[in-house]
Amino acid sequence: MGITFTVHKECSESRARTGVLETPHGRIATPVFMPVGTQATVKTLTTHELLDAGAEIILGNTYHLYLRPGSDVVEDAGGLHRFMGWPAGLLTDSGGFQVFSLGKLRTISDEGVEFSSHLDGSKHFLSPEKAVDIQMALGADIIMAFDECPPADADYVYAKRSQELTTRWARRCRDRHHREDQALFGIIQGGMYHDLRRRSAEDLQEIGFSGYGIGGLSVGEPKPVMYDVLYELIPHVDPSKPRYLMGVGSPDCLVEAVFRGVDMFDCVLPTRIARHGTVLTRRGSFTIRDQPYARDFQPIEDGCTCYACQNHSRAYIRHLLKAKEVLGIRLTSIHNVHFLLQLMTDMRQAIDAGSFLAFRREFFGTYAG
Amino acid sequence: MGITFTVHKECSESRARTGVLETPHGRIATPVFMPVGTQATVKTLTTHELLDAGAEIILGNTYHLYLRPGSDVVEDAGGLHRFMGWPAGLLTDSGGFQVFSLGKLRTISDEGVEFSSHLDGSKHFLSPEKAVDIQMALGADIIMAFDECPPADADYVYAKRSQELTTRWARRCRDRHHREDQALFGIIQGGMYHDLRRRSAEDLQEIGFSGYGIGGLSVGEPKPVMYDVLYELIPHVDPSKPRYLMGVGSPDCLVEAVFRGVDMFDCVLPTRIARHGTVLTRRGSFTIRDQPYARDFQPIEDGCTCYACQNHSRAYIRHLLKAKEVLGIRLTSIHNVHFLLQLMTDMRQAIDAGSFLAFRREFFGTYAG
Repeated sequence: MGITFTVHKECSESRARTGVLETPHGRIATPVFMPVGTQATVKTLTTHELLDAGAEIILGNTYHLYLRPGSDVVEDAGGLHRFMGWPAGLLTDSGGFQVFSLGKLRTISDEGVEFSSHLDGSKHFLSPEKAVDIQMALGADIIMAFDECPPADADYVYAKRSQELTTRWARRCRDRHHREDQALFGIIQGGMYHDLRRRSAEDLQEIGFSGYGIGGLSVGEPKPVMYDVLYELIPHVDPSKPRYLMGVGSPDCLVEAVFRGVDMFDCVLPTRIARHGTVLTRRGSFTIRDQPYARDFQPIEDGCTCYACQNHSRAYIRHLLKAKEVLGIRLTSIHNVHFLLQLMTDMRQAIDAGSFLAFRREFFGTYAG
Repeated sequence: MGITFTVHKECSESRARTGVLETPHGRIATPVFMPVGTQATVKTLTTHELLDAGAEIILGNTYHLYLRPGSDVVEDAGGLHRFMGWPAGLLTDSGGFQVFSLGKLRTISDEGVEFSSHLDGSKHFLSPEKAVDIQMALGADIIMAFDECPPADADYVYAKRSQELTTRWARRCRDRHHREDQALFGIIQGGMYHDLRRRSAEDLQEIGFSGYGIGGLSVGEPKPVMYDVLYELIPHVDPSKPRYLMGVGSPDCLVEAVFRGVDMFDCVLPTRIARHGTVLTRRGSFTIRDQPYARDFQPIEDGCTCYACQNHSRAYIRHLLKAKEVLGIRLTSIHNVHFLLQLMTDMRQAIDAGSFLAFRREFFGTYAG
């Protein structure tokens, strides 16, 4: 429903693959990175700047939009695409991750989660049904089932209970959802336990979804642990469906997860670090606010085709950041989003050309974490 | 030196006129509004957004740039045009107004002004010679003489002493300045006293400048007082030279000052009020953050061709402002700068068409201050 996914090319030496997601708002080449527009805007950027950077799909956050401006306002505007003026692919999360991140401000039961708004402390209740209702009102092309996300150090008993709860909630989401123009993805949980992850994938596939999120990773565990979970899990996920690793966006993790068969990613990383003056390059990241860049009149990254690198120097951007000028974080945000989208393009080209392993070797030859 | 000014058309029923300033960085149609780029950026906007909005000249602040990043850094970059990536006209003020605004943090003598930096309290000294040296290093197309700006309620004795000091300083600026590609403007002072204003204009014209700033207005006096000063002063200013009313940018003041013969303006108003959620329209300004706009899906101003009005609704912009998203103040800033530049274009067209009085009547027929 809503979208179709076609695998285009599979790497013969790894699980990396390219594909195409067809949505009511256009085609999306995978593997894809989705910039995050938490509050109906990818922080500091216009929709045209996102399109110019090559974004084909972005993400909106149900929890934030439900509280402000309210899903009713977005619905009145004709849905989130129209409210924010975004013509291409759109995915909303279920609000689950944000609600669970509230810690003491929420209580979980089988029915759902009661929580207090981070804005004004007002009480709210989110259930699988309500998460789907809100997402149907927001009207994204892809929506996510309501899940429970255990912490990285969850013990087996907790992780098992959480995986089972996520399965029951996923079924209720599936039963509630009825928008034909929208795809619903399930979310695989199970902590760092391979058998629970496999069980979660099998349970969700029995219910049947248009794609599968992999949640509960990049929550504090070491990167090798995440890579192991992906390595063990992916063979148990229906290869005809897109696999979406949620909340992951550092360049090295993107390469390693694509290598292990992931098709979709989202993360606030590029815009969040940009606001602290950190920029991404193929040699690793650096903090452009630092003193050495005061008279450095080179672009952030030589050869980069983003607006910041085509028009401005490190010295100028550093000055803007030191002076707390908005243009500074605009330029670092544009660069970082462009960088990750270009990295995905380069990976897709390498996979299609049958040279992904060489690409990966070359990438880690210059990249310093 | 540096620029030429040609009067193109004079209104037969008022002192309004159109003209062209030719600078090393292009032609500028007057009357012109110059957006203010205090710290080498017009707040929130890129240089391309300014060009798209129709800006032909912008302003930089000597005081701010001298302190940060330092005029030496800007000079190393090849001047302010290159440092900030601005290809068109550029004017720097002398730093005088900012230094005098520091109040207790500065001491004036005939030699110059000692002041403490608002950034770190460090001591600095600004003299007419130093203000010119810094501005030659920054390399704008038009630079301003170092002046003393008395408060709106200055008594006659103070205003007279200040006018005389400004004249002595203007001569020292003239003697110091030697960049052939740069024009130097004197600044007419004299408080609210017509005879002092006339004396200031005559003194400065005897020294000889490429244009004349009118300083010390819009500093707290009622608008009619400012209009009177302009009315009495303008006949005493060489009609072959551009007249620049400093620090004025509200729509009604722009129309009234053009009516009285002013050619150039600058003001932080459009970007400053934008950051507080206030937008300019032909019917007056309104605060888009307010509740009535929560479900108002119209553009800020019907028929406006700016990026914000072409792409987004009041409801969306209100949401962004309430959620403290940078895109909100970007959109209000783009709109306000575009609005003032469009207002100047409309005035120029009306003057050229011989219909400026009708334009002014129509403007005040709908505009609610």
